[in-house]
Amino acid sequence: MTIPVPARPKFQDPQIEMAHGAGGKASRRLVEDLIAPILLNCGEPLGDAAQLGIGGTWIAMTADSFVVSPLRFPGGSIGHLAVNGTVNDLAVSGAKPEALLVTFVIEAGLSSWELEAEIEAIASAASRARVVVVGGDTKVVEHGKADRLYITTAGIGRPLPSMRLAADSVRPGDKILVSGPIGDHGVTILLARGGLDLEADLVSDTRSVFPLVESLAEAAGAGVRWMRDPTRGGVATSLNELARDAQICVVLDEAAIPVRDEVRGACELLGLDPLHIANEGQFIAVVARQYANEALQAVLNTWGGERAAIIGEIREHPAATVLCNTGYGGSRVIDMLVGDPLPRIC
Amino acid sequence: MTIPVPARPKFQDPQIEMAHGAGGKASRRLVEDLIAPILLNCGEPLGDAAQLGIGGTWIAMTADSFVVSPLRFPGGSIGHLAVNGTVNDLAVSGAKPEALLVTFVIEAGLSSWELEAEIEAIASAASRARVVVVGGDTKVVEHGKADRLYITTAGIGRPLPSMRLAADSVRPGDKILVSGPIGDHGVTILLARGGLDLEADLVSDTRSVFPLVESLAEAAGAGVRWMRDPTRGGVATSLNELARDAQICVVLDEAAIPVRDEVRGACELLGLDPLHIANEGQFIAVVARQYANEALQAVLNTWGGERAAIIGEIREHPAATVLCNTGYGGSRVIDMLVGDPLPRIC
Repeated sequence: MTIPVPARPKFQDPQIEMAHGAGGKASRRLVEDLIAPILLNCGEPLGDAAQLGIGGTWIAMTADSFVVSPLRFPGGSIGHLAVNGTVNDLAVSGAKPEALLVTFVIEAGLSSWELEAEIEAIASAASRARVVVVGGDTKVVEHGKADRLYITTAGIGRPLPSMRLAADSVRPGDKILVSGPIGDHGVTILLARGGLDLEADLVSDTRSVFPLVESLAEAAGAGVRWMRDPTRGGVATSLNELARDAQICVVLDEAAIPVRDEVRGACELLGLDPLHIANEGQFIAVVARQYANEALQAVLNTWGGERAAIIGEIREHPAATVLCNTGYGGSRVIDMLVGDPLPRIC
Repeated sequence: MTIPVPARPKFQDPQIEMAHGAGGKASRRLVEDLIAPILLNCGEPLGDAAQLGIGGTWIAMTADSFVVSPLRFPGGSIGHLAVNGTVNDLAVSGAKPEALLVTFVIEAGLSSWELEAEIEAIASAASRARVVVVGGDTKVVEHGKADRLYITTAGIGRPLPSMRLAADSVRPGDKILVSGPIGDHGVTILLARGGLDLEADLVSDTRSVFPLVESLAEAAGAGVRWMRDPTRGGVATSLNELARDAQICVVLDEAAIPVRDEVRGACELLGLDPLHIANEGQFIAVVARQYANEALQAVLNTWGGERAAIIGEIREHPAATVLCNTGYGGSRVIDMLVGDPLPRIC
């Protein structure tokens, strides 16, 4: 066995800024240039969940911290996000979510009813996502040393035997499927913070995507090459990561991307691109061309997948690039998220 | 299958205070009266790690958040604690630690070298504890919304086949073993905060106890009834939980409890009891009487277990009580930790 010599961290930023937590370029630099070289036995691209063999059984495991502000927003709360976020990381790694651990960091002074509301939210989201909460931990810090409540969830699941997901299995001609309208969560949070003279009839999309993934796996499991839930940094960031990891080009068809009018309108006013906005209840999948129709039909026919769409395809060149064909016959390059226009979105 | 009807939470405290995070009575009330009734499929006493069957294999899993202040202290740092704390929760549940997930909540403005130092600490502690870090997550919050760095670790392990641990298997006559001197971690943190006109040549005991647990399991696995790592709230709190869960009496022999002079001295000056001080590299085990000598010898003969001792035994009455026989022929009742004399100790 050859043990790889870890590279020296080449992270150059002198301190950690909000952008390092935004899920875009700075986040990737922090993980790839500082954390992974020291911590992970890597070489492989970083996925949403790790798989490991334990006692002859393969399991998937993942963990996420949640620091969303405000704690409650239309369509959900930090407790819902904490369950669904971790459940979705397992789902898009091709695993059936089974059990969760939940830890709380509480700012002293949080009212007990607010905490109770979030515990209820966790219980309700876990029940809907069909996972059990098996344990956790609680810490309290002084007033002013947290923002009311942070939650971390760790999840464990069983890999679905029908799916083998890897960025390097993606091929030119493969199709890109999205499970539903994008940007709902990020714009909902932005509006919930107030301060903008904007209102919209919009709720977060926070939910477990596992039922959709399961339908996809049953109908077209062998044809699914790669999946991701486009949270921080949005669809644009996830697809840029794919384009880079697989050294391919992603070409999107702008007209095919499902975006609610409320999201499109808010983004236009604020100068944001829906492709950069966080989602908490959608996934994107790359599916082999010959499976694409069955895959789409399977998701469309599953409750909550009614607005799924094929939004683009994979090409060979230019490698490591995401392009979007606009309605006017032109195309534009879609970059990863840069900076942090929407801090603490999850 | 009968689904138990969850009890309504009976938690009465109007808001969350520091004491709810201290590991003592208030913490237990928060967990038992608010969190568990809503969240956990319980009925069973809450242990340090949950065991679940997945694909025919039993695994142990646990998660803990770490908010220690200061981040670095003699003998270790938050990164070491975050690894060893989770590893030890697995170990004292009778499992061999295998893999960790690590998530960071970072206060914007943290210097990159401080973060790098903690990532190095995690890597080094994981390597020493023979676990792999397989993934994680990073979030950043605004300056003033955290205290530099909080870390959450989730761990997974394999139950050791030789041990079946349960509070209700504890019997009168069983012996209580401690792996080494108590109180080092808590007093080290207290002194590291300064402000007290005290100095001592003392370092945190943060380490993996798994090598000691493994020796114990090999020598006397069938005789080990219960284990716990006495962190927040100290030995007194862990043993009170045992006494309550098992409805037995724990009788300690004060003279037999290993305590360093520096810890004893600091506790006397500050009016604290070493039995209430947090440990981060010790465990207590209840061992059947006929296995007690082998158990003690096994730990004594393992590197790092040289100061292990039998510190007391189990009696039938008075149930749900911890007593300590003092050097003067008397005995005193040892209660759980009340309040939070040592906030953010881990």
